Amino acid sequence: MPAPRSFRRQSLITFVLACILCVGFYQFFFSSSGNDLPSGTAKAKDTASNVLSPPSLPFRKSKSNTPAQAPPVVHYHLNNLTTSRTPIDNQETVLILTPLVKFYQEYWDNLLKLNYPHELISLGYIIPKTKEGNAAYAALQAQVTKTQSGPKNKRFASVTILRQDTESPLQSQSEAERHKMENQKVRRAAMAKARNSLLFTTMGPMTSWVLWMDADIVETPPTLIQDLAAYDVPIIAPNVFQRFYNTDTKSQDIRPYDYNNWIDSPTAKEMGAKMGKDDILLEGYAEMATYRSLMAKMYDASADPTAKVQLDGVGGATLLVKAEVHRDGAMFPAFPFYHLIETEGFAKMAARLNWKSYGLPNYLVYHDNE
Amino acid sequence: MPAPRSFRRQSLITFVLACILCVGFYQFFFSSSGNDLPSGTAKAKDTASNVLSPPSLPFRKSKSNTPAQAPPVVHYHLNNLTTSRTPIDNQETVLILTPLVKFYQEYWDNLLKLNYPHELISLGYIIPKTKEGNAAYAALQAQVTKTQSGPKNKRFASVTILRQDTESPLQSQSEAERHKMENQKVRRAAMAKARNSLLFTTMGPMTSWVLWMDADIVETPPTLIQDLAAYDVPIIAPNVFQRFYNTDTKSQDIRPYDYNNWIDSPTAKEMGAKMGKDDILLEGYAEMATYRSLMAKMYDASADPTAKVQLDGVGGATLLVKAEVHRDGAMFPAFPFYHLIETEGFAKMAARLNWKSYGLPNYLVYHDNE
Repeated sequence: MPAPRSFRRQSLITFVLACILCVGFYQFFFSSSGNDLPSGTAKAKDTASNVLSPPSLPFRKSKSNTPAQAPPVVHYHLNNLTTSRTPIDNQETVLILTPLVKFYQEYWDNLLKLNYPHELISLGYIIPKTKEGNAAYAALQAQVTKTQSGPKNKRFASVTILRQDTESPLQSQSEAERHKMENQKVRRAAMAKARNSLLFTTMGPMTSWVLWMDADIVETPPTLIQDLAAYDVPIIAPNVFQRFYNTDTKSQDIRPYDYNNWIDSPTAKEMGAKMGKDDILLEGYAEMATYRSLMAKMYDASADPTAKVQLDGVGGATLLVKAEVHRDGAMFPAFPFYHLIETEGFAKMAARLNWKSYGLPNYLVYHDNE
Repeated sequence: MPAPRSFRRQSLITFVLACILCVGFYQFFFSSSGNDLPSGTAKAKDTASNVLSPPSLPFRKSKSNTPAQAPPVVHYHLNNLTTSRTPIDNQETVLILTPLVKFYQEYWDNLLKLNYPHELISLGYIIPKTKEGNAAYAALQAQVTKTQSGPKNKRFASVTILRQDTESPLQSQSEAERHKMENQKVRRAAMAKARNSLLFTTMGPMTSWVLWMDADIVETPPTLIQDLAAYDVPIIAPNVFQRFYNTDTKSQDIRPYDYNNWIDSPTAKEMGAKMGKDDILLEGYAEMATYRSLMAKMYDASADPTAKVQLDGVGGATLLVKAEVHRDGAMFPAFPFYHLIETEGFAKMAARLNWKSYGLPNYLVYHDNE
């Protein structure tokens, strides 16, 4: 009986939603109110500003019958939605989603440097209701407030923050502890659920692209979105590296970080075939050598920087996804799916829906170095 | 390469979003603006009416820098979300989702009779861009306009209509044609994608319940939502019957209609085990006898009307789902998932996420009789 768990979880899911930039709304109003509004309907500004809103509003019973002089119905006829290799030309909206446990100032600074028009970017966060999550929330909130009241061209279209109580270890863990193999399945199942909650709750009818960006990604090219979108593929991942001080060469250096972007191997397939249905394959563990081709190992500074490879598994550290891939149903399995889980399971699920995943071995983004 | 298909599909997905009731928004404003707004932020009515909106807004570049005298940031601190057996007491919102190909007036009339507070109900539709879909859209639109400008207590919180071009046969088909076994896999895969698009696009942070209701369900008890919610289970389906004229008894009679609500059988499991990975099990076909226990056959007018059974497969004709089930990632697989697809695959996926499905054999709702 899932009832007790269900009740507990549900009652503790609190959604704190913060920091809505109104400018975008007014732009929408004024640009659309001249178009399609049938005569006799309300002026847009008198009414609901958005079509998606209502499913989510905490409608309370009004004791007094407040305004409503305005006619109650507004029709919106929206343009066709595109997902193209020239997203700025087509004014395509990007939803950047980040599961957040710890706030990194460098992550936020990097976001601010993205030169995709910020008015086309919405941000979504899910933060656990733990002590560490509270601290991350406070830090994020402070930066959001600062940015959204700062220069207009830096403001994002919106920021949505979900707070979720999890039974499972999305909370504070040292990097070593997090990466222990026996902790991975539970940890990644919890992460998968967090990603799904965030995705299902924030994607709207006008979302063209979803950019998954982990909170510990601290450096990307400012043209990240345009660069990835230009490939016009359903799912695309840059190569996640890490800067470090190389004590051998006594200089700053870089090394591969994320091993979740890979091309499948016969060995891994055989291992999967022999596993129990609830077992999962993990990447990057010596005790489970899969002999998959890891994109992390394919980096070649002297090779074509635009080279693209097809992938069978992807990571979520930085991942651009066409919204229609998710709309078809591709999500992050919290259960073993073809012996894969979370982002790697997502790539497999997308494949089952006929959407292919790609990676860019020579296009680097950087993970924080704890 | 999915690119051509991707492009075609994407460019043809048009979202027509209609008929937003403003009263609910104002209630929200006026009830929340007294609460948590930090001093110095805008009056709520000057700003974005909703927190979820922005991810979906078609932000266009404004040539003129329109209003924005109002400060750009508003904070909403929303209450905890519950999903309880007393949803009205807790003011829980219900999102009713209907894939629509043909509009039935009786369906709409039945919706209007639901006595769950309409201000807590949002409606979502997905309609194919076909000739028949256009007719259905027009008919729906007319009724929405009428209802939303009619008596306040009948108005719904909102209505969202998505138009989707599908490559696949969600379009016009006779009932006989639709039910042919060889057409089922393709048809149900298309239906699964439509359900996912609708779900991923319309569910918001404040959605407590999702009620799936097919467009050809023409009669339910007016207390449907309260009745189903009272069981406080993750997923629950009433028994879908059909009224017909019995030529033997020369009188009105009822008969079972939906065979997708079932308890699994050893035979079905064996059949699945022997199938190819892309094959699916279907219910209700003599050439594929599964010996599952069908809820449709369990109806007993003289038995306990509140009897509840646990199910392994469910239909989507009428189905109440706690929003957290979907948020965890449970969706409608458009690919064979444990040899199941669409709503039956959904029940299996929910089970993999530890959410159980139930059915009410003696609680009837009625499908149209074409």
